[in-house]
Amino acid sequence: MLRSMSFLVLSCFSALVFAKQPIAIVIHGGAGTINKSQLTEAQEQAYHATLKHAVDTGYAVLERGGSSVDAVTEAVLIMENSPLFNAGKGAVYTYDEGHELDASIMRGDNLMAGAASGLTHIKNPVLLARAVMERSEHVMLSGAGAEQFAKEQGLELVDNSYFDTEFRYEALKKAKQSMQKLPHQAQNYRLKAPWQPEWNMGTVGAVAIDRSGLLTAATSTGGMTAKRYGRIGDAPIIGAGNFADNASCAVSATGHGEFFIRYRVASDICARVKYQGISAAKAADQVIQQELAKVGGTGGVILIDHKGQISWSFNTEGMYRAKRTEGGVAVTEIFKDSPSLP
Amino acid sequence: MLRSMSFLVLSCFSALVFAKQPIAIVIHGGAGTINKSQLTEAQEQAYHATLKHAVDTGYAVLERGGSSVDAVTEAVLIMENSPLFNAGKGAVYTYDEGHELDASIMRGDNLMAGAASGLTHIKNPVLLARAVMERSEHVMLSGAGAEQFAKEQGLELVDNSYFDTEFRYEALKKAKQSMQKLPHQAQNYRLKAPWQPEWNMGTVGAVAIDRSGLLTAATSTGGMTAKRYGRIGDAPIIGAGNFADNASCAVSATGHGEFFIRYRVASDICARVKYQGISAAKAADQVIQQELAKVGGTGGVILIDHKGQISWSFNTEGMYRAKRTEGGVAVTEIFKDSPSLP
Repeated sequence: MLRSMSFLVLSCFSALVFAKQPIAIVIHGGAGTINKSQLTEAQEQAYHATLKHAVDTGYAVLERGGSSVDAVTEAVLIMENSPLFNAGKGAVYTYDEGHELDASIMRGDNLMAGAASGLTHIKNPVLLARAVMERSEHVMLSGAGAEQFAKEQGLELVDNSYFDTEFRYEALKKAKQSMQKLPHQAQNYRLKAPWQPEWNMGTVGAVAIDRSGLLTAATSTGGMTAKRYGRIGDAPIIGAGNFADNASCAVSATGHGEFFIRYRVASDICARVKYQGISAAKAADQVIQQELAKVGGTGGVILIDHKGQISWSFNTEGMYRAKRTEGGVAVTEIFKDSPSLP
Repeated sequence: MLRSMSFLVLSCFSALVFAKQPIAIVIHGGAGTINKSQLTEAQEQAYHATLKHAVDTGYAVLERGGSSVDAVTEAVLIMENSPLFNAGKGAVYTYDEGHELDASIMRGDNLMAGAASGLTHIKNPVLLARAVMERSEHVMLSGAGAEQFAKEQGLELVDNSYFDTEFRYEALKKAKQSMQKLPHQAQNYRLKAPWQPEWNMGTVGAVAIDRSGLLTAATSTGGMTAKRYGRIGDAPIIGAGNFADNASCAVSATGHGEFFIRYRVASDICARVKYQGISAAKAADQVIQQELAKVGGTGGVILIDHKGQISWSFNTEGMYRAKRTEGGVAVTEIFKDSPSLP
């Protein structure tokens, strides 16, 4: 009798505690020139299915009381393991026909963060970013050193060819053809090589809020097709392609990384929320539709603010994206003209 | 007659245009546990002399109508070439007894930026950061790839041993001794290795405003003594160790880089100026003396706001620093109890 009373009290207590913060997760799989004419029906369905699988997996973690750190990790893992996205398997090719991957993760309660760049053998870069956050005293590791750390942490290593896909190799060939048409000097350092969203599209990210109110953001990418010179984009830069702060919002970005670094996109959106008191949705629109759009910076963001409000904003034709909020079902969208968020 | 009239008109016009914005420059050479007992009189004088040389050289560029991009470059070059600072010659040692350097630069009019990390053969990392900003389509390059780009740009390369100094080698030995006292696992990834400001002190930076009102910030460092795993600190992270925006302020930071990344220090200070309308001095104090101090993040910043107001803030015992404003002379300071800024 006492035991069942205790159970009842505990259950009520749990319900009260757990009712505190509605859970939510939002993910993206890259922004760019995506329209109906470029995707077959089968491709479109494949994207919807993988986005749904990823967002549902992250949601399930939250639903069973798991942390948003686990939720975004699980969601990103599914997209990294899918060849559809430019992250993990399916990463774009560098100029030298290899793959160099970047990832980051940040939690909004204590602003702990982890990032890794220039990875060539880490099957799941998001796991390395997380290991950096949780098991090193550093925030950002790079190249061979980062992989040495990954080995010590027992992370799964793969041959660089694991990341190969036919689709991305075709994109590299097209990128190189386009570069050959440029004057010799420009070729050298791609000064004027046009950013082609369709060559690079597919950075992935996830943002979630758990029952404790913890915001976490994660981002993972293969970067830019035909990239050279150890180029680092915005994905592993805390404050650019990823940011989380329980006092404002959590953001994962995708797009032309150089603009996202210069305009410190993720942290600027959160700064507007924190210091101007505007909603995250409005802040994101200001940065993506105004600041970036006027200088030609293409891309988008997904975000959740400290009240648990989900939003996204992109200035491209489409963005692979999905969301799931407390008690609801997964909503997956690709094109700009998809029904907008409620 | 006509010619001298034209000259007169041009001179007046120039005087009017040039009178628009008073010039100013502020530099730092690292923050940390600096007190009278740790410096000999000769060392103290050497620091004052080099800081004065650097700030005067940058000021001279501004005085003759040069850009703040040139001014900060020249000032940083002098500190990189001096063994007194942890940047260029005099950079700290990595765990493997080499040197890996990082630098960044950003201009506040168009938010163009350049950064490079993990450099082992570039004599002057600030020149590579500038080349990335001005002659590549990227913002951040790393490692061997960054050095390949530097070679193509004709930058001066040196053997890694060029960066050697006895003083820094002693610091590495002390750091390793301290690490050996840690439990084996912690040694592996320095999870609990205490940050020792005196081992790492000496990151350099410069911020300037020229007659056109252009703000520029540059930062250069050898990073953290005994660093491993391709660790990247805040110096080459736009928004963390360096940021410039004519709409708010320009900042160069020095300190425990992991905190400066997580708290996106440079961009947060500028965000407070931009969105809260407070002075850069107040914003810097909020971030350095409150946000960072309460979590144990040691270091400091130098900054100039969009009105040309110079300030600095540090939560350590000292910060090597100097400033020079329109019509004034160089002021160099080291300790906390130096007369504060007017």
